[in-house]
Amino acid sequence: MDIGFMQFAPALGNVQATIDRIDKLGEFCAGVDLLVLPELCNSGYNFESQEQAWATSEEIGNGVFLQYLESLCLRLGCHIVSGLNERHGSHLYNSAILVGPQGYVGRYRKLHLFMNEKDFFEPGDLGLPVFDIGPCRIGMLVCFDWIFPEAWRVLALKGADIICHPSNLVLPGLAQRAVPIHALTNRFYVVTANRIGCEGDLTFTGMSTIADPKGQVLAQAPPVGEKVNRIEIDVSLARTKDITSRNNILADRRPEQYTLLTE
Amino acid sequence: MDIGFMQFAPALGNVQATIDRIDKLGEFCAGVDLLVLPELCNSGYNFESQEQAWATSEEIGNGVFLQYLESLCLRLGCHIVSGLNERHGSHLYNSAILVGPQGYVGRYRKLHLFMNEKDFFEPGDLGLPVFDIGPCRIGMLVCFDWIFPEAWRVLALKGADIICHPSNLVLPGLAQRAVPIHALTNRFYVVTANRIGCEGDLTFTGMSTIADPKGQVLAQAPPVGEKVNRIEIDVSLARTKDITSRNNILADRRPEQYTLLTE
Repeated sequence: MDIGFMQFAPALGNVQATIDRIDKLGEFCAGVDLLVLPELCNSGYNFESQEQAWATSEEIGNGVFLQYLESLCLRLGCHIVSGLNERHGSHLYNSAILVGPQGYVGRYRKLHLFMNEKDFFEPGDLGLPVFDIGPCRIGMLVCFDWIFPEAWRVLALKGADIICHPSNLVLPGLAQRAVPIHALTNRFYVVTANRIGCEGDLTFTGMSTIADPKGQVLAQAPPVGEKVNRIEIDVSLARTKDITSRNNILADRRPEQYTLLTE
Repeated sequence: MDIGFMQFAPALGNVQATIDRIDKLGEFCAGVDLLVLPELCNSGYNFESQEQAWATSEEIGNGVFLQYLESLCLRLGCHIVSGLNERHGSHLYNSAILVGPQGYVGRYRKLHLFMNEKDFFEPGDLGLPVFDIGPCRIGMLVCFDWIFPEAWRVLALKGADIICHPSNLVLPGLAQRAVPIHALTNRFYVVTANRIGCEGDLTFTGMSTIADPKGQVLAQAPPVGEKVNRIEIDVSLARTKDITSRNNILADRRPEQYTLLTE
């Protein structure tokens, strides 16, 4: 399987400019099977007002950004995971959506909101879903979710092979160091697609990363600059959770000792 | 607070040789407040038989190794966490014990047994205790526990400031990379005291590590060679779990979304 990320700067409040940029970078994506884009890709991140957050959101179904992603998946013959400023009724969610050649597959709504996101978005209410797309099972997390090991572990227990992690990371390099360790302790692949550039007083840190079930960094982008990076992976590596001939990282767990985690 | 580790090779089946070695390295420990020793320090690791494992164990209370640690704590005016091959009734446990100038304080029994340890030891049955020794609250994990993020998180939720992690690590460098990330995602200190040397077909990997609540490596020993390393820390850094002005890594958790972790 050929998986990759697209690191670039979504345009705040200008979805057409973002689509044009993705379309341009799509030239480097022929033959990719799974492509991950940054967080809040349709809207940009650092909203000046509730009105701007609302105006740049779209509902699942008829929005211009989802329609574009569907056309891109069809053209490339791939699946895409992208961050989405999702409108639902009177609420906004910081979501990740999974799209394929047949169209929209499913969504995840960010469980752990960062800083001012708490002013614009509702906390996620759809749990931690895993989607089987045939060659692999996909889980999604968004940006700041990275600091909660519980979320990664739940996705491992649900059988995810690849965690797609759209991000707009600003804390310098922390998540990029942690992601390979989450990959290692759960024995799955992780694709962190981070953005670059500045919005207001925020500088995004790039360094988009692909890590494998052994905790190795297979690919990492520079902290600045657009980058499409792709790598051929063996999904079956994520299907065995044996770390030695007598140890399995899921079977060796002691759930009865972890009760505090759910209280 | 001055905390440190002692990296050396406990002698298989020769507790007096181990005591002599610790006593020698104790010369570098004047003024230390908390010292961490490797896993199974009283016995060595790679037992040839059940009989050897049994013969090298000791009960909490009257054993030569605990008595020695008590005398060392008194002499140095410090607390020590050490791995212990613990006999209890007809069972053995791969334990960590906390000892201070007033004597034995408490124990932890390894929850997640590695490889052939499953032939010699019972899995831990005392949960994940945290001990308040005044200047700090101490949690303990042993070696392979490192790959279970649940265990680290439970100790954070119970208020541990410093995780003492006696180890006999053999997988090359994996735990040493993961430990600073566990420190970061839980915002506590970790002292991993690993051993060196070989026993039979096992080579231990050294690189004992002290990490801080920001995920920084404050000290790391080489992969080979004895090493006492100490560092002055500010315990209060581990008492705030705020990672931004609006984010707290414990308060932002979504326990109701993690139920799979305890099933």
